Amino acid sequence: MSSTYGQQLKLSIFGQSHAEAIGVIVDGFPAGMEIDMARLMAEMARRAPGQSLLTTARKEADAPEFLTGVLNGRTTGQPICILIRNTNQRSRDYGDGVDLIRPGHADYTGHVRYFGFEDWRGGGSFSGRLTASIVAAGALCSQWLETQGVKIACHIQQLGTVKDASFMTADPEADYAYLKSMHLPVLTEGLDQQMEAEALDAREAADSIGGVIECMVTGLPAGLGAPFFDSVESQISHLLFSVPAVKGVEFGAGFGFAAMRGSQANDPFAMKDGKIVTTTNHAGGVNGGITNGMPVIFRCAVRPTPSIAQKQQTVSLKVGEQAELEIHGRHDPCILPRAVPVIEAITAIAVLDMWKERQGCLM
Amino acid sequence: MSSTYGQQLKLSIFGQSHAEAIGVIVDGFPAGMEIDMARLMAEMARRAPGQSLLTTARKEADAPEFLTGVLNGRTTGQPICILIRNTNQRSRDYGDGVDLIRPGHADYTGHVRYFGFEDWRGGGSFSGRLTASIVAAGALCSQWLETQGVKIACHIQQLGTVKDASFMTADPEADYAYLKSMHLPVLTEGLDQQMEAEALDAREAADSIGGVIECMVTGLPAGLGAPFFDSVESQISHLLFSVPAVKGVEFGAGFGFAAMRGSQANDPFAMKDGKIVTTTNHAGGVNGGITNGMPVIFRCAVRPTPSIAQKQQTVSLKVGEQAELEIHGRHDPCILPRAVPVIEAITAIAVLDMWKERQGCLM
Amino acid sequence: MSSTYGQQLKLSIFGQSHAEAIGVIVDGFPAGMEIDMARLMAEMARRAPGQSLLTTARKEADAPEFLTGVLNGRTTGQPICILIRNTNQRSRDYGDGVDLIRPGHADYTGHVRYFGFEDWRGGGSFSGRLTASIVAAGALCSQWLETQGVKIACHIQQLGTVKDASFMTADPEADYAYLKSMHLPVLTEGLDQQMEAEALDAREAADSIGGVIECMVTGLPAGLGAPFFDSVESQISHLLFSVPAVKGVEFGAGFGFAAMRGSQANDPFAMKDGKIVTTTNHAGGVNGGITNGMPVIFRCAVRPTPSIAQKQQTVSLKVGEQAELEIHGRHDPCILPRAVPVIEAITAIAVLDMWKERQGCLM
Amino acid sequence: MSSTYGQQLKLSIFGQSHAEAIGVIVDGFPAGMEIDMARLMAEMARRAPGQSLLTTARKEADAPEFLTGVLNGRTTGQPICILIRNTNQRSRDYGDGVDLIRPGHADYTGHVRYFGFEDWRGGGSFSGRLTASIVAAGALCSQWLETQGVKIACHIQQLGTVKDASFMTADPEADYAYLKSMHLPVLTEGLDQQMEAEALDAREAADSIGGVIECMVTGLPAGLGAPFFDSVESQISHLLFSVPAVKGVEFGAGFGFAAMRGSQANDPFAMKDGKIVTTTNHAGGVNGGITNGMPVIFRCAVRPTPSIAQKQQTVSLKVGEQAELEIHGRHDPCILPRAVPVIEAITAIAVLDMWKERQGCLM
Repeated sequence: MSSTYGQQLKLSIFGQSHAEAIGVIVDGFPAGMEIDMARLMAEMARRAPGQSLLTTARKEADAPEFLTGVLNGRTTGQPICILIRNTNQRSRDYGDGVDLIRPGHADYTGHVRYFGFEDWRGGGSFSGRLTASIVAAGALCSQWLETQGVKIACHIQQLGTVKDASFMTADPEADYAYLKSMHLPVLTEGLDQQMEAEALDAREAADSIGGVIECMVTGLPAGLGAPFFDSVESQISHLLFSVPAVKGVEFGAGFGFAAMRGSQANDPFAMKDGKIVTTTNHAGGVNGGITNGMPVIFRCAVRPTPSIAQKQQTVSLKVGEQAELEIHGRHDPCILPRAVPVIEAITAIAVLDMWKERQGCLM
Repeated sequence: MSSTYGQQLKLSIFGQSHAEAIGVIVDGFPAGMEIDMARLMAEMARRAPGQSLLTTARKEADAPEFLTGVLNGRTTGQPICILIRNTNQRSRDYGDGVDLIRPGHADYTGHVRYFGFEDWRGGGSFSGRLTASIVAAGALCSQWLETQGVKIACHIQQLGTVKDASFMTADPEADYAYLKSMHLPVLTEGLDQQMEAEALDAREAADSIGGVIECMVTGLPAGLGAPFFDSVESQISHLLFSVPAVKGVEFGAGFGFAAMRGSQANDPFAMKDGKIVTTTNHAGGVNGGITNGMPVIFRCAVRPTPSIAQKQQTVSLKVGEQAELEIHGRHDPCILPRAVPVIEAITAIAVLDMWKERQGCLM
Repeated sequence: MSSTYGQQLKLSIFGQSHAEAIGVIVDGFPAGMEIDMARLMAEMARRAPGQSLLTTARKEADAPEFLTGVLNGRTTGQPICILIRNTNQRSRDYGDGVDLIRPGHADYTGHVRYFGFEDWRGGGSFSGRLTASIVAAGALCSQWLETQGVKIACHIQQLGTVKDASFMTADPEADYAYLKSMHLPVLTEGLDQQMEAEALDAREAADSIGGVIECMVTGLPAGLGAPFFDSVESQISHLLFSVPAVKGVEFGAGFGFAAMRGSQANDPFAMKDGKIVTTTNHAGGVNGGITNGMPVIFRCAVRPTPSIAQKQQTVSLKVGEQAELEIHGRHDPCILPRAVPVIEAITAIAVLDMWKERQGCLM
Repeated sequence: MSSTYGQQLKLSIFGQSHAEAIGVIVDGFPAGMEIDMARLMAEMARRAPGQSLLTTARKEADAPEFLTGVLNGRTTGQPICILIRNTNQRSRDYGDGVDLIRPGHADYTGHVRYFGFEDWRGGGSFSGRLTASIVAAGALCSQWLETQGVKIACHIQQLGTVKDASFMTADPEADYAYLKSMHLPVLTEGLDQQMEAEALDAREAADSIGGVIECMVTGLPAGLGAPFFDSVESQISHLLFSVPAVKGVEFGAGFGFAAMRGSQANDPFAMKDGKIVTTTNHAGGVNGGITNGMPVIFRCAVRPTPSIAQKQQTVSLKVGEQAELEIHGRHDPCILPRAVPVIEAITAIAVLDMWKERQGCLM
């Protein structure tokens, strides 16, 4: 099964890039929350295409309709259906059938998966466009989590060869709200310009570029998650890896642990203001799959957009022979700025699901 | 919920390090498979402690009892209960209560999670010991997958500062069965000795060391997995991150994608013996969350064992004050050789779950 | 969680009676089935109100939009979103707030469940109107099952004091397709007129009337279902009891077993045309939770519609005192004719879910 | 999948009648509850065979081992593994292979389901013996629910032709604890003797007899359950129908609704001691799938034990021909007294699962 997620908070995602709509059902959302629609739309805008030369010039209305589960501006506790109509479908850009399968895309695997019956147009079910629904759902979750003091911040930690500082050494108490206002959010002042230059360079070369997004969640209580199959890392990574471009996820020191010794890796415990804390946070806020009250920090690797304007070698499904492919249309040389709000949304969804699970134990 | 996994093949893991037993229920396993118990026990032996100076000298019988679901040496299709008695419980090594919470361990988070009622002895539910059940369950899955031509191979790609070659550039057709016979399985001849030296060095320093395990699955058909929430990456990472020591997971080029351009990252398609293949495999065998028929390749970061003999700073839960902790007992300076069969087992479980899901679509 | 169902075939239902829409996501539906939209609409029409004096005069367009998961008239294997706009919302009929809670309705329980934030208008999430989505989803499932030779037939076995014959003694080989054409489908010729008379009698008395619907599924292979938690009876009853009016479910002899002896109750096995059959079918086609190849037969009790025009005693939520309630608006004196296609749809959904599960074992 | 149940509280049942053991994993049980083992064993004793002439003379030790999840007599919040060894396996009573399939049993369907590899001995996975695990798990749940004021009472409402009064008209405030002390628990004094006579009569005739068990749950708050797929009725019936002998389930007036009018069926609301109540309880405490604070009342039909000493017509699987079967061994002429604690246990499990779900919404 492909399209449902969660145990306490259940998401059912649906839609294809060129179907009539995309959307999501959010089941189990807390009742009574007043939705700040302006802020939700601001999150949608961050993910929307057409913001700069770094991203596709394609325009998408991305107007989410809240068809159910909301009354008088408040969540009712009943399933929320968020529908986003597809309006700007220029399918001719994508050719007249899934014949020349695009490298790095899911044209081929989708064809096999669905026995040739798939809605392949514009990436079909695999399109990054489906993440618009996730951003809308995640924005709801973020707003609820904020009422509990939970904050989620992301920045681009790497874009091509340009590397930013890390939340691992940043001040968790700082207010990272400003990151949301940057097109290329970075911790190090001015670094966004270097990143932009590198991305534009890729664009000029009719190419695309990858990167790393780092995320920090503060304000979480200790005790979320569980040992083994529902570890915090399991649940968050499960959702992160559902984003088509994500190919790596690491928590805390992550792959850096490989070269560390236990004496360096262990985070010593200490008392601070009557509360148990760790004096370092290599674990990324998670011990044994459960939050320890320190900021949860993780990074995810984002592959370069597979749609590039260069000629590529591929195969014709119809002829069954080698072929050359040239992708026209409008694409993102660098998906990272648009991926940031998606990662934030995903995180909010995963955290709220764990929060509800924890709540169910408080009895 | 913490202890169940899977949709078509369901695992329920249970037990604590110092409870009477650990074990697992495997529900949905195919009927009629003859179990090769000798090979299953060989896998158990690879995970067992006491094999070398690199691993704890603790002895564990690790004798799995198949209480149900097996008749005349064959699986019956009914739930399989695998029970492993805990016989060698030297709890005195662990002190007389969860007071001084061990850095890097789940003593504190487990205490919060279970409101102080947890079975904390020897790591309780968080103990790496529970992975013995996973190895037994995974060995069953591997044996079944082999009947379909699926093979799973792992090697230690990094241990401390020593780095091995990668499956990314290795010959997927080669027979990597020999890796199972090595205590420190590596692709590069002789590198295991360098790794051993580094691990022993950590041991001498009363310390531990981390690393990276790389895994390759060959023989998979295209079409396993699904877009979004049940992507191959989501499902495999979910299980991998349930292993207490795993803190990072990447597929194919993984974090290496960050510095790549699309033109490098995309895997061109080609025809080979009438079959569609890719000429490179940066995607690690997965496009859009679905296998493309190429080897599935991933790596996971393994943190250094948190149990070290050095003095560490911590907090006394009972007194609520700073304290110094010295961990006695027998521990693993380098968990990697024992983690390898666990990663293989996990992979087999995840793959069989996806295989069954796919089977359910063939109608 | 309230709104998702299924393991291999997942449904997520959403919407409220007076929200903008109702609908359902169907995930896991087989790819490549050509939809017979005319027949699907015919099923919708059977459930639609306004067909006779027995049912509410309310008009609902009930036009299902297939927003996703269908391409060129065929299912794609991707999630199918069926949306039904609410057009004929005469909310004024329902009063101006959930104050006087309607006996037999979910006004009060919904109010508690959702902490007073629920969309209460017209029954909200509890409205029978949501079954329109189920009929649409079930019609898809029925069409697929028919390609495998599975047929589902229902009749009204009881309406008030009028009782029809039973499938238990009917010829399972007979063609019961004609039942779909009857407003009050019965096995015994002419009995529908007696039932109609009794229903009209209730209508005249400003009252409503209950009944029993019997269902038979033929063409099922032996082997669907499972012992214990996923027995055929468990799965079908789970779905049946989600229909607001259903308050009882029995399989085969059902409650009649209470007065039977084992020697009467047991169905003797016999060979027929080289196939194992039973010579009676008291078990309703299910032994130990698994289909035995005989017709699956069950009945469900349908309570009288709670909306009646008579004055009723209730409580004012706002004042917290006893009050008298008079329900205006248009309601169904007898919901049975409209419930029949819902029960058929539910059955088709449950059967397809079990069918897929079974398919996943054939390896 | 067959063997897992629940969303907040997860059960995984395993074992076969003649395997080495049966048992259950209970995951998600609240931490910190002191187990009253004497009362738990009393529940086990009620289900145990050999209590009277009405039940099989077979002896089963039924000694549950709590292998995990309990420390110092308290639940730890970690998965609880309850194991019951099979000691008294007289398999010779059951013949030397699944050849002559027993009418009313799952010999045939299990054979098909598991492709001939099933552990068929003594009913295998289908044996009523597995309910011993359910009783143990349910006893834990009951003890927890009692701390919240929830009580579960059952009586035999019908045995053959003898019918008892109903909880529908009984005083919900009364203390029905005495029912647990009766071998044939009834509301009407002396009726148990009539029932016993009827059961013994069946026994003399080498036959068995069915019945109806009625259950009432008091002390539940309003707000448990949900509309549609997780209605109280859906969840309870799902579990009830997993008990091999249960073939019918009805809530409140149940099938009696068929002959009722809405004006009779609706339960008027009223204020009582500042609380909203209904003055009748035809709905069995559930409106729109959600508890309304009144007692939850349901009945389930129990079919006569299929194992009878009379000659029966069946088929030989091995020869593929008609055959005559004579079942030797020790069986239950009337399973009802042993089924009562199973129904109570099932109810406690379902209620605790819903209770935890509700708890997860209180935020």
